[in-house]
Amino acid sequence: MSATDYDSQKFHEGLVKAGLIVPVGVNGIFGRNAVFEDVLARFNDQVSALAKDDGAEYFVFPPTIDRAVLQKVDYMDNFPNLSGVVYSFFGKELTARQLSERIHSGEPWSEFMGMTDVTLNPAACYPVYPTFTGTVPKAGKLVTMLNWVFRHEPSPEPTRMQAFRVREFVRVGTPDQVVEWRDMWLKRGVALLESLDLPATPDVASDPFFGKGGKMLAASQREQKLKFEVLVPVISKEKPTAVCSFNYHESHFGDVFDIKTEDGATAQTACLGFGLERCVMALFQTHGFDPGNWPTSVRSKLWPNGTTGA
Amino acid sequence: MSATDYDSQKFHEGLVKAGLIVPVGVNGIFGRNAVFEDVLARFNDQVSALAKDDGAEYFVFPPTIDRAVLQKVDYMDNFPNLSGVVYSFFGKELTARQLSERIHSGEPWSEFMGMTDVTLNPAACYPVYPTFTGTVPKAGKLVTMLNWVFRHEPSPEPTRMQAFRVREFVRVGTPDQVVEWRDMWLKRGVALLESLDLPATPDVASDPFFGKGGKMLAASQREQKLKFEVLVPVISKEKPTAVCSFNYHESHFGDVFDIKTEDGATAQTACLGFGLERCVMALFQTHGFDPGNWPTSVRSKLWPNGTTGA
Repeated sequence: MSATDYDSQKFHEGLVKAGLIVPVGVNGIFGRNAVFEDVLARFNDQVSALAKDDGAEYFVFPPTIDRAVLQKVDYMDNFPNLSGVVYSFFGKELTARQLSERIHSGEPWSEFMGMTDVTLNPAACYPVYPTFTGTVPKAGKLVTMLNWVFRHEPSPEPTRMQAFRVREFVRVGTPDQVVEWRDMWLKRGVALLESLDLPATPDVASDPFFGKGGKMLAASQREQKLKFEVLVPVISKEKPTAVCSFNYHESHFGDVFDIKTEDGATAQTACLGFGLERCVMALFQTHGFDPGNWPTSVRSKLWPNGTTGA
Repeated sequence: MSATDYDSQKFHEGLVKAGLIVPVGVNGIFGRNAVFEDVLARFNDQVSALAKDDGAEYFVFPPTIDRAVLQKVDYMDNFPNLSGVVYSFFGKELTARQLSERIHSGEPWSEFMGMTDVTLNPAACYPVYPTFTGTVPKAGKLVTMLNWVFRHEPSPEPTRMQAFRVREFVRVGTPDQVVEWRDMWLKRGVALLESLDLPATPDVASDPFFGKGGKMLAASQREQKLKFEVLVPVISKEKPTAVCSFNYHESHFGDVFDIKTEDGATAQTACLGFGLERCVMALFQTHGFDPGNWPTSVRSKLWPNGTTGA
């Protein structure tokens, strides 16, 4: 870490000391207080305002998703280490007593559990694709969601969360419709962050595909410019954090879920998501832990009616 | 089902046809549309309004919780069949390839996964108790939360969800403080639901403890009147649904998490939660699927500024 760089641990301690986050016993899982939540809701309002004339349908999906969907979209092939598959107890009374004894004697009890039909949802867009099966209208489709997602990557680094919320948009249509929409939002995303005095930079990116084969997939994704991110310094000035992510899937989901355009071709899709907690943390890192002391321009944009969360 | 009773399947179909919920491939998991979410937010606003002078601290905790907390509070002993324990993949590249092959050949792949440090959170109040460890002030403590919870009980019955949101309140203090507060909220809960023209009835209740031993625990809980529910007909007139639940834990959590009152005694706790999706469904069942056609008194209470979600 250079002398001019931020200090991840100090930032985490600052969030905790200000009461903005409440640590629990596990890294990457923590409570958010009223001020944190207010800033998150106001940032989300800004995103809604940008999209207000686009006609996107709004949905909320639960934090858990049909396991069959993750299997179909190859999530377990590409990111098995990040998955969160839900197990429960399917046994009878005697086995339940053995389970209790194991737990209270501090011994492993994994063998008592069985796999359920659901997993945690690792990407805000996944639940909606199966609903597109069929032929989309000529203008395509546009959906927005606010979903909790899960990634199994426990870390003391505050922006590396296991559970967080994403404000997501998904576009379905022809290649031209999808790419034009993605390019428009890339500009919108940077402009929104800049309007909040955040030093935002777009960049080509890749997903953290698993293993050696994954390195090749990531290189190909980068080469084809299928993924972009907008980066803002949060825990490091030199390695800014992705707060907004844009994925162009070409016909991947169209193939898997049999989605067609009016001319009978496989529909293409793209999605973008604002990592809401990361956007909030970028604001706290840049402007300080007390929203009451943020620059007037930022406060009046987030709280147009004059109340700050502080 | 009697002739005067509601029809659960018809209600589910009505919610789907009106676009209020979006089925996915698994029972008890579904998307909610903008109208559903608007009603849910407005109902939640009503709860906030009731509590506005109480001084409760607000938090949001993620859908996942430290597994150690569930073990400590005996959740896996009492409700193992409802649990959702999160598993992930801890192997290397060769094993990941075997996992992929298993999945795509449609064979079981449970053995490739290992238990993580988190589970899904089955009750909105659990994450906050560990933060109370120590001595609470003379006036006790009061916290409110809006958390996603999970219960592994897949069912086609629309109010029997695997994933749903609870607006929760938790009170910590002396027995008198805790019981007085619980009694006050029991009245408030009934009055709130009645003010929305919902036929609400309070009743003594018990938790669905597992197994034969569980039946005794449930009987004892009922006998001691430790659990109350407020019931409203949603999928059945004869068996109304619990939309609001009140639990008095006596010193259970105080013992487990070493919470004391100022005089050195073990603190007592109580909690109450509004099952937000169930409250919303009670409104749709009672007043119809289009909020624009709800009684004026209900609409003006939920949307005081005149906009309905319809």
